[in-house]
Amino acid sequence: MSAEQAKPTDRPGLQTITEGEFAGWKILPRDTFEWNHCGPFYSRRLPDGTIECAFKVDKRHLNGLGVVHGGVLMTFADHALFHFAQEDLRDAAGAVTATFNSEFLGAANEGDVVEARGEVTRAGGSLVFVRGILTANGKPCMAFSAALKKIKRR
Amino acid sequence: MSAEQAKPTDRPGLQTITEGEFAGWKILPRDTFEWNHCGPFYSRRLPDGTIECAFKVDKRHLNGLGVVHGGVLMTFADHALFHFAQEDLRDAAGAVTATFNSEFLGAANEGDVVEARGEVTRAGGSLVFVRGILTANGKPCMAFSAALKKIKRR
Amino acid sequence: MSAEQAKPTDRPGLQTITEGEFAGWKILPRDTFEWNHCGPFYSRRLPDGTIECAFKVDKRHLNGLGVVHGGVLMTFADHALFHFAQEDLRDAAGAVTATFNSEFLGAANEGDVVEARGEVTRAGGSLVFVRGILTANGKPCMAFSAALKKIKRR
Amino acid sequence: MSAEQAKPTDRPGLQTITEGEFAGWKILPRDTFEWNHCGPFYSRRLPDGTIECAFKVDKRHLNGLGVVHGGVLMTFADHALFHFAQEDLRDAAGAVTATFNSEFLGAANEGDVVEARGEVTRAGGSLVFVRGILTANGKPCMAFSAALKKIKRR
Repeated sequence: MSAEQAKPTDRPGLQTITEGEFAGWKILPRDTFEWNHCGPFYSRRLPDGTIECAFKVDKRHLNGLGVVHGGVLMTFADHALFHFAQEDLRDAAGAVTATFNSEFLGAANEGDVVEARGEVTRAGGSLVFVRGILTANGKPCMAFSAALKKIKRR
Repeated sequence: MSAEQAKPTDRPGLQTITEGEFAGWKILPRDTFEWNHCGPFYSRRLPDGTIECAFKVDKRHLNGLGVVHGGVLMTFADHALFHFAQEDLRDAAGAVTATFNSEFLGAANEGDVVEARGEVTRAGGSLVFVRGILTANGKPCMAFSAALKKIKRR
Repeated sequence: MSAEQAKPTDRPGLQTITEGEFAGWKILPRDTFEWNHCGPFYSRRLPDGTIECAFKVDKRHLNGLGVVHGGVLMTFADHALFHFAQEDLRDAAGAVTATFNSEFLGAANEGDVVEARGEVTRAGGSLVFVRGILTANGKPCMAFSAALKKIKRR
Repeated sequence: MSAEQAKPTDRPGLQTITEGEFAGWKILPRDTFEWNHCGPFYSRRLPDGTIECAFKVDKRHLNGLGVVHGGVLMTFADHALFHFAQEDLRDAAGAVTATFNSEFLGAANEGDVVEARGEVTRAGGSLVFVRGILTANGKPCMAFSAALKKIKRR
């Protein structure tokens, strides 16, 4: 099951990048697939209160055709879901992805910054629904939506 | 766009594993995300003519909760789509994933062998529809379906 | 929310058709959209224990191009989900469709018998996952999958 | 296949409602499932150029639990897709729904006005991707996304 503890952006251990292209963005270093093998993935809160996530495409992310592998985009989007839903997961011990849907809109290339923007479409007692769009250098590359299932606090 | 050249199983360069747990399975070593950072992913043709794909979960694949990251499962399923559809993509220069849908059915853990089985539900002139199931040590962990868009030969 | 009480096939009020093309199939007459405006939809249990659903296409079901409207197929599939899942919903007061995904594989025409076959891919404590295929006169016309959310007994 | 001729809002035969709750909205009377058995469905162009679709829930639309059947919402959303995409389908002879995905966010009740708002996320040469939200009296009741496949002009 695709699982993330809630509230990654405001969590203890979160570090702020101080230099380079992602200065001002935050990361949470962890010994996970996201961090070591697909990421790092960055996040920041925009002035309007919404969360934005981003990563920069490098050689590791490419498929046999030389563009970003769909699996990388889905991994990144799955990660972003939990950032978008974090306020609505505060009453839960965590959450897992129950369903994930995507439409591939365009290619992302080496050197592109891929950004995720999204929103909660409905926060229920046990399910939280989220949707979003990935862009690569500002051009749409994937639309996605998902249902997250809360893990109850014991 | 999630892209793969067609016919990975029968392609030049395909190597057969000769020892260990995946003896008899085939791999295609390539400098890609699948191979270096998420895989290796194995495939074999069963006696009934269908294709099966598999990989073994290791520490790299885990998320913050210690189970396989949903992004890994989606990357592997996206890879398997092209194996299942290879016969129906022979008239194309390749194909890309246009849409991908998944339901997460159960967790996969370190040491599990995750297998993908699936089928083409319809092969059209420009779109090929595929669906499948991932199991982890024989227990369902993800259902998925997708539309692949053929890249025309020039 | 897309909602159905569980166990339609074995429910009180279920009637068996005794003549015509659907002799031996069962229906549940109710004052609903399914029954009065889209159906009637039939169901029967096959010797292997699985449930099959069916309806016959008439003029009412057509769209502007003269083939069955996608909405009719999705209504019928949404209905069939609850037949396929009925054994796994016995411990619940009912269930609602939480997510529904479909791929349109081919057209259905006036006079065709559309059949639904499917299976539960995973029955959890609160979510039941189902997938299936619609055929029109034996040819695939839609693949679908869904997550049903149980309504707890009070 | 779910099929609609493109450009319903600006098409010959389109009529403007002159009185009642939907005064100023447009309809296209046709002998179809949408019109006779599920609709009528209304549409209008808002000052910002976007298209909005709507219908009013009556007894016909209800399921066994007394709320709007999920099939009605999916039929209406499938209809709305073609309104949202009409500008991007002008170069085609028409289009069909290739894939449709939905998340059910909340119930719609008798007497509610259900509205559809949406957008094209990407218009390609053969596929047009659309997403949207249905609201019932202003509250979210379904999120949806789809891939439309253009029918080539001969």
